[in-house]
Amino acid sequence: MIVLFTDFGLEGPYTGQVKAVFYRTAPGVPVVDLFADAPARRPKPAAYLLAAYGIWFPPGTVLLAVIDPGVGTRRAALIVEAEGRWYVGPDNGLFELVIRRAAAARTWEIPRPPGPLSASFHGRDLFAPVAAQIARGELPSHMPRQAHIGRHVDWPDDLPEIVYLDHYGNAMTGLRAPLLPAGGRLAISGRVLRRAGTFAEVPPGEAFWYENSNGLAEIAVNGGDAADALGLTIGSPVAIDF
Amino acid sequence: MIVLFTDFGLEGPYTGQVKAVFYRTAPGVPVVDLFADAPARRPKPAAYLLAAYGIWFPPGTVLLAVIDPGVGTRRAALIVEAEGRWYVGPDNGLFELVIRRAAAARTWEIPRPPGPLSASFHGRDLFAPVAAQIARGELPSHMPRQAHIGRHVDWPDDLPEIVYLDHYGNAMTGLRAPLLPAGGRLAISGRVLRRAGTFAEVPPGEAFWYENSNGLAEIAVNGGDAADALGLTIGSPVAIDF
Amino acid sequence: MIVLFTDFGLEGPYTGQVKAVFYRTAPGVPVVDLFADAPARRPKPAAYLLAAYGIWFPPGTVLLAVIDPGVGTRRAALIVEAEGRWYVGPDNGLFELVIRRAAAARTWEIPRPPGPLSASFHGRDLFAPVAAQIARGELPSHMPRQAHIGRHVDWPDDLPEIVYLDHYGNAMTGLRAPLLPAGGRLAISGRVLRRAGTFAEVPPGEAFWYENSNGLAEIAVNGGDAADALGLTIGSPVAIDF
Repeated sequence: MIVLFTDFGLEGPYTGQVKAVFYRTAPGVPVVDLFADAPARRPKPAAYLLAAYGIWFPPGTVLLAVIDPGVGTRRAALIVEAEGRWYVGPDNGLFELVIRRAAAARTWEIPRPPGPLSASFHGRDLFAPVAAQIARGELPSHMPRQAHIGRHVDWPDDLPEIVYLDHYGNAMTGLRAPLLPAGGRLAISGRVLRRAGTFAEVPPGEAFWYENSNGLAEIAVNGGDAADALGLTIGSPVAIDF
Repeated sequence: MIVLFTDFGLEGPYTGQVKAVFYRTAPGVPVVDLFADAPARRPKPAAYLLAAYGIWFPPGTVLLAVIDPGVGTRRAALIVEAEGRWYVGPDNGLFELVIRRAAAARTWEIPRPPGPLSASFHGRDLFAPVAAQIARGELPSHMPRQAHIGRHVDWPDDLPEIVYLDHYGNAMTGLRAPLLPAGGRLAISGRVLRRAGTFAEVPPGEAFWYENSNGLAEIAVNGGDAADALGLTIGSPVAIDF
Repeated sequence: MIVLFTDFGLEGPYTGQVKAVFYRTAPGVPVVDLFADAPARRPKPAAYLLAAYGIWFPPGTVLLAVIDPGVGTRRAALIVEAEGRWYVGPDNGLFELVIRRAAAARTWEIPRPPGPLSASFHGRDLFAPVAAQIARGELPSHMPRQAHIGRHVDWPDDLPEIVYLDHYGNAMTGLRAPLLPAGGRLAISGRVLRRAGTFAEVPPGEAFWYENSNGLAEIAVNGGDAADALGLTIGSPVAIDF
């Protein structure tokens, strides 16, 4: 299975052209849109989202992960293998948490292809062909050496910020809920929110946080829009309140 | 064929994870996004939309229908078979009109699975696996008994409200157009609208109503946005004017 | 491969029903969403977008192209074969540039089908079945004669207007970049913009233009939203400044 994690959107031409590459060069392999609205041009929050959602997929999955504000510059192009999953995308920190949390990870730098390459759409022209090859079983074992990829040791293990807003207005943090204290509360936008198991445990209109279905601490309002109610955007800081 | 009728949106992680379940457990079965923007958290208008659009698909189709504000509560999980189509989703009224309009319908309650279940994403963890089984031909005939599902006898046969706004600004009602009087007009937002066969029959900028391509009475403005022009939202009341 | 170029959107029922037609009548043929947000109801700018993006696909591709404000009127329904690609859609100028730029093109008029036809959704009921036939290899060679299609000789070879705004806020023009003077600048919204090779060549926040990945001149702001910054919409005029 090939999984797309991008900021390309679905309605315009970008995701469709990437899928056309897959259908032509890895026919019969299902392609799943995981996120087409990952944090635009912001690899850091996207890295925490990717690490939380990528591991939901079984080993053998190929994840094309492209948040690429540096497209057209000399930033490297990477293949990362982590616990049996394959990630393909730019070397800008997007895979930092995937690698850091994996028991074992290997990385390769994708050589620049010999032919012409668009300046602005490496997702289609560089990363998708490589991801399709891996999905067909052509693993990069022939490729000579591990890349010296950029690491971001200063990034925390969990990010106390909003990393994603969904269309209901729920706000995901970069915090793994199972690592938070059992009775822990989260402070955000001048409010302190208690934890609940699910929406129905809190009165309508009340803000709370819960462990979402992929293990992240997520802020919500029962029957409402937390992002609007609390004024949240990607990057809004969250504090853990004991 | 598996058909998705949800309020999950397409760009975020929800629809993609549901499809991943289908691609893994019912490989080769096409999956169609019918509505990813059905009325969010509102099973009642969604029920009229589902009843109008579900019957367009041939018998044998499996429809995963999830508008589920009560996820995580004790509301039951259902399989409904109506005129050869299979519907899977929560017991909250979403299937009321499908059942009421069918010549014959059968229902089963989905037992709670033995393993862990996320509190907030039964679409992925409970309903999609059951829908995939049915799509593979594993019908629920082994399941012991019909569910005592919640019925909503107070809901009308046709709903005189707006049940869906499309991205052009056209507004679908919960009224079946073939049941309306031939020269009937619809009153909404203080306006009385005449019926037309198609957009080109009315002057640019004029509001009217017509029978849409799935049989619902739909309010539109030729070349314009009816929802904006008339201030319509899900639930706006419509009256039949003779 | 079947490629969709429409203003139908993805979340509502239109694209899903069209795909259901394809999955039933051309099973196994991949379907790609190229544009679901092509200029709504505006065949002229859409024609320049279609001509630029259609040729990226290999010969043999079937493109369903439906921007159809005249649905329900007597406008003809067309099949166009241009350089080995098949286009299916309404006769309203949408194929003008595809035909004009092709070394050779053939056209057929689709006869009105014998059965009932919805007044408002020919994409599903008329065009998709024909596109599916072609995708299955049933070419229209049996069809009697070339259509007398509407030509738009007054439309320019390149359109100095904005023809598409993507979700990043980048604005595509109807100008083919390789035909512009090497050092050419573009004037828009009272600003004169220089050309750059890629985003990283200009300072953050600065507007510029570049050749996008399908050869159109596109206006962007590095790290920003050009449509917002410059007040651009579909149809905004652009001038070539020497």
